Amino acid sequence: MAVIECVPNISEGRRADVLDACAAAVRQSGARLLDVKPDASHNRTVYTFAGEAKQVVDAVLALVDAAIRQIDLRQHKGEHPRMGAVDVVPFVPIEDVTMAECVSIAGEVGAEVARRHNLPVYLYEEAARQPSRRNLEDIRRGEFEGLAAKMQKPEWAPDFGPSVPHPSAGAVVIGARMPLIAYNINLATNRLDVAKRIAAAVRHSSGGLRYVKAMGIALTDRGIVQVSMNLTNFEKTPIARVFELVKREAARDGVAILESEIVGLVPSAAMTNAAAWYLQLDNFSGDQVLETKLRNAT
Amino acid sequence: MAVIECVPNISEGRRADVLDACAAAVRQSGARLLDVKPDASHNRTVYTFAGEAKQVVDAVLALVDAAIRQIDLRQHKGEHPRMGAVDVVPFVPIEDVTMAECVSIAGEVGAEVARRHNLPVYLYEEAARQPSRRNLEDIRRGEFEGLAAKMQKPEWAPDFGPSVPHPSAGAVVIGARMPLIAYNINLATNRLDVAKRIAAAVRHSSGGLRYVKAMGIALTDRGIVQVSMNLTNFEKTPIARVFELVKREAARDGVAILESEIVGLVPSAAMTNAAAWYLQLDNFSGDQVLETKLRNAT
Repeated sequence: MAVIECVPNISEGRRADVLDACAAAVRQSGARLLDVKPDASHNRTVYTFAGEAKQVVDAVLALVDAAIRQIDLRQHKGEHPRMGAVDVVPFVPIEDVTMAECVSIAGEVGAEVARRHNLPVYLYEEAARQPSRRNLEDIRRGEFEGLAAKMQKPEWAPDFGPSVPHPSAGAVVIGARMPLIAYNINLATNRLDVAKRIAAAVRHSSGGLRYVKAMGIALTDRGIVQVSMNLTNFEKTPIARVFELVKREAARDGVAILESEIVGLVPSAAMTNAAAWYLQLDNFSGDQVLETKLRNAT
Repeated sequence: MAVIECVPNISEGRRADVLDACAAAVRQSGARLLDVKPDASHNRTVYTFAGEAKQVVDAVLALVDAAIRQIDLRQHKGEHPRMGAVDVVPFVPIEDVTMAECVSIAGEVGAEVARRHNLPVYLYEEAARQPSRRNLEDIRRGEFEGLAAKMQKPEWAPDFGPSVPHPSAGAVVIGARMPLIAYNINLATNRLDVAKRIAAAVRHSSGGLRYVKAMGIALTDRGIVQVSMNLTNFEKTPIARVFELVKREAARDGVAILESEIVGLVPSAAMTNAAAWYLQLDNFSGDQVLETKLRNAT
């Protein structure tokens, strides 16, 4: 049975009635709602739910209906950049489903959302149909307030829907990506320069590992520093390699690893891969995990 | 939903019709048959199946019926020690079930098997009602051929059933235990003495870790040696600790680890625990594993 995860971000983090209506829309579709994370200062909420293809598609369509009815970006203020009432909708392959299937679902949902609401839709990351649209930040640059001007340029015509923003809902970015792992490593030092240097060494943008975003920050209440990361493809850049590289760079400066932490959810395979790497399990297969075998047995 | 695993060993490893009848008995009860491993030279077969309490109990009772009808130990020869047509039946807690519940199921099944077949039953490991019966090897010592004499001693009166062996089926040992992990570490050397010394260093019986059984063997076709182990409680003696101790002992003799292997199934938690140890994930919880969260979500 295929499992697809979907992680829509909506531009509302304060009004409980709106957030509840969106959660109810997801639940009524049969998808399993795993997490709802509102952020009042960002004025933004992240929903995480999962299910089979049809359940997830129905859930997204219901959530878009509910959100667009109640959110007006002309009235919206928040710290996080945004260009849509429903700002971004990634589909994530979890179990017995390929990235290609998630890309195809993103396309279908994009076409349907544009049709129902006369809303411009951009496809991003793995679902992008132009290389310039892979990166969410590039699409969103200028935000809701700059969207009407941006959309007049031919290179920013949407993948679906009209070439003008929806008056209250802006535009929505829909796509497919690998599971994202929020992974932090705490260093046994208060030297922020060390954390920043290591972040620069391991992140892709400044010469590091391909699927790592990183920054060095101070945890002032604990008197330590942290390399705070997003791992955007744990198959190609596995957690163990990131940890070992950070550890080696820290040792260069005479600093030890205090601990690390995964924020939120992590796919089972990411943990299993790390165990297999450290234990040198050369021929290990995911089918050897008892719970996986059980789920697949009839 | 509780998941209990059951791993009965029967004294038949050659006659396909008998093995098929036992497999069919398990399947008809609704339990999920995960593995059937016949061994012709041992003349013995290990069944692995899982399900909810009622399914697993029904499956064992059906399997005992089928096996006892067709196996006559007076005719049985094989390399592996045995004292019953159904030799040993462990219940293993996997998910949302306690060891205490598995102990209680072992007792119920023991009583029922004795009643149905007039068969002596011993309870072992976590289900043992006397310390001298915790260890399977102690109960089985003397095998089927020595059973009649052994049972005349008051200290070997069975926990259920008559104090004489069943004429064709001997006696059965039923109990509860933690999942067992078959774990081997291959060394980059052909020196059997090194493998044997390390096995002695890490195994419980000669001063090593509490839940490790180990022996050193030669893999002659590959020109290397192996520390071959059973890990009988991965929570109290985790895989990572075993691996690191073997690695350190090997380094003492100038030998590197070539690779390690898990034979058969491993509980997801054993792999997750290893990953969390190596990555220093101090506050990691099993609920953070996406697939676990999904299964528990409604």
